[in-house]
Amino acid sequence: MMFNNNNITISSKASIGKNVRIGDYTIIFDNVVIEDNVIIAHNCILGEPLNEYYFNPGYKNPSTVIGANSLIRSHTIIYAGNKLEPCIVTGHRVTLRENNFIGNHTVIGTLSDIQGNVIIGNYCKLYTNVHIAAMSRIGNFVSIYPFVVTTNDPYPPSDDLKGVTIKDYTQVGAHSTFLSNTIVGENCLIGVDSVITRNFPDFSLIMGNPAIIKMDIRNYVVLGKGRLYPWMYRFSRGMPWENIGYDAWINKQF
Amino acid sequence: MMFNNNNITISSKASIGKNVRIGDYTIIFDNVVIEDNVIIAHNCILGEPLNEYYFNPGYKNPSTVIGANSLIRSHTIIYAGNKLEPCIVTGHRVTLRENNFIGNHTVIGTLSDIQGNVIIGNYCKLYTNVHIAAMSRIGNFVSIYPFVVTTNDPYPPSDDLKGVTIKDYTQVGAHSTFLSNTIVGENCLIGVDSVITRNFPDFSLIMGNPAIIKMDIRNYVVLGKGRLYPWMYRFSRGMPWENIGYDAWINKQF
Amino acid sequence: MMFNNNNITISSKASIGKNVRIGDYTIIFDNVVIEDNVIIAHNCILGEPLNEYYFNPGYKNPSTVIGANSLIRSHTIIYAGNKLEPCIVTGHRVTLRENNFIGNHTVIGTLSDIQGNVIIGNYCKLYTNVHIAAMSRIGNFVSIYPFVVTTNDPYPPSDDLKGVTIKDYTQVGAHSTFLSNTIVGENCLIGVDSVITRNFPDFSLIMGNPAIIKMDIRNYVVLGKGRLYPWMYRFSRGMPWENIGYDAWINKQF
Repeated sequence: MMFNNNNITISSKASIGKNVRIGDYTIIFDNVVIEDNVIIAHNCILGEPLNEYYFNPGYKNPSTVIGANSLIRSHTIIYAGNKLEPCIVTGHRVTLRENNFIGNHTVIGTLSDIQGNVIIGNYCKLYTNVHIAAMSRIGNFVSIYPFVVTTNDPYPPSDDLKGVTIKDYTQVGAHSTFLSNTIVGENCLIGVDSVITRNFPDFSLIMGNPAIIKMDIRNYVVLGKGRLYPWMYRFSRGMPWENIGYDAWINKQF
Repeated sequence: MMFNNNNITISSKASIGKNVRIGDYTIIFDNVVIEDNVIIAHNCILGEPLNEYYFNPGYKNPSTVIGANSLIRSHTIIYAGNKLEPCIVTGHRVTLRENNFIGNHTVIGTLSDIQGNVIIGNYCKLYTNVHIAAMSRIGNFVSIYPFVVTTNDPYPPSDDLKGVTIKDYTQVGAHSTFLSNTIVGENCLIGVDSVITRNFPDFSLIMGNPAIIKMDIRNYVVLGKGRLYPWMYRFSRGMPWENIGYDAWINKQF
Repeated sequence: MMFNNNNITISSKASIGKNVRIGDYTIIFDNVVIEDNVIIAHNCILGEPLNEYYFNPGYKNPSTVIGANSLIRSHTIIYAGNKLEPCIVTGHRVTLRENNFIGNHTVIGTLSDIQGNVIIGNYCKLYTNVHIAAMSRIGNFVSIYPFVVTTNDPYPPSDDLKGVTIKDYTQVGAHSTFLSNTIVGENCLIGVDSVITRNFPDFSLIMGNPAIIKMDIRNYVVLGKGRLYPWMYRFSRGMPWENIGYDAWINKQF
């Protein structure tokens, strides 16, 4: 009952792959490419025109790609110029501003807002209401929990904008905030409500306002559970090393 | 002018009570029961199918109940499997994931996101953009102010998820964060931007990051106003003890 | 392709200016005045009726004005009783509750929620997901960065609600929280994740939980950049002193 072909608007300049399902009231603008087996739920806007559209009669919409096998949940807005790799999932009411690149198998949660010119790697999970500032770089296998905010202006208001960098495997606790231009290394764990005001090296357990290194995460032991990080040796659901183990998988990569 | 019967989609397997008003572009899926006198505004999705829907041709939508006299504001999404008791109010763009139970007279504010398998009691008020983690338990007469985030993963990423518990009459200040599996007792007051990292007993005034007990809330005196907590003796608007007083009402309960 | 006149609902009691463009599925209620050259994107609701509408058959919708040359992005909800001056821009999914006044050239970002009876000045920028409590007062040229929350209840729950005041030129860092009834003076800079629990004078650099004055902002020097505040002498993009300089502009005002 979700796919009734009721009030769907598709530009004649859009390209729709095989076995694509589209929910009611969804609008697909010029130069959007929907690859095969994509599901798009209700009320989505794909290829939302940039601001220039309203004022320039010669405006041409940049191309937008939704990778194969992706699931775009209802009320999501994806601006023109986004490139989504295959197997991406969005929650509801997601906003992707222009010119982001989103890696394969990444999940972007309900209400999250990716501000534009952002690169996000593969197999990331952004939970509800995550705010990624323009020009940020997120690695692979990164999880960002609800209500995390990254910023990009070092002395507001200015035009000297610089995004943040969060490297592979790092886990960012809910409600944390990042100052512009900060870099957090690989395999870090950031506690909830932390404020990241400087750079941190790989394998840091990070907490506080301003955040500091509490210890090397490899030394973090939970009673009765032992060492829990790096987490890839104990958690594999939905990851490419599911069923074979992280060591076997990583050895195949190189 | 709100109810024009313009582009409303209702499953033949849904049940609509007497005197129900439904706004334009609203979609009601299989096995949704709308009780009498409910108002549903524009662009709502009720009984949103679970993820399995997209992949299992034999999928059967779990039942969803919207209790009598409820008001569901526009752009709200309620997944299949929710049970809403009578007289509930939602703001705009609320998301209720699957299998929540929401008690009577509870208000869930604009943009709030209830993550699934959550139990919320009666007469609660969740303000704007409150995020309740899956498997949490909220008592009765609890207020949760804007941008509060609860979490449920003690060492992310893991599958050892445990929600939070907030007991009757407790007030949770805006922008606070809860670690997974924490329990806050009855009649507590949590200051804004607190980080709840452990359990707290009844009647605690709680503040800070990490939050600590500042005092017994019954000893909290505001100059010129005297003792303000427990609050039920001085505030009754919309509460069942309105007009009769808390003592008279509580005595009638037992 | 954005303006197809597809499923637009306009009350016969609304007034639409010259050269107004309206996106699909937008609904415009009684007594809304859209001035000339306004752009309204998809799925907006303008003049959303107040709560009384549902229960009072004699309800009359208060007037709502959208000033000339404004741009209202998709999924925005503007309640009846709002007065928007010319040249306002909203992001997506903005909610303006009843009876706000929004000054000219102000930008209100995606997901932001203005709670009602709020006055916001000219040339302000509210970024993503800013929450302004009812009865607050925001000056001119104020920037409020993502996920800032203002509150208005000093001892919740109560009916003794008082908004916050933020004066001209002040910059409010992301993820900050304001207690009810606090006043922040002109030309302040509030660091990210601050908690404003008391009043602050003009020209304060404010940080922390609870926030304190770090220094007079006029003494704040960044290595290699010199003094950066007041910011009006180094930043003018989109401001009325663009091209002429702040001194020349301010002298013309008086």
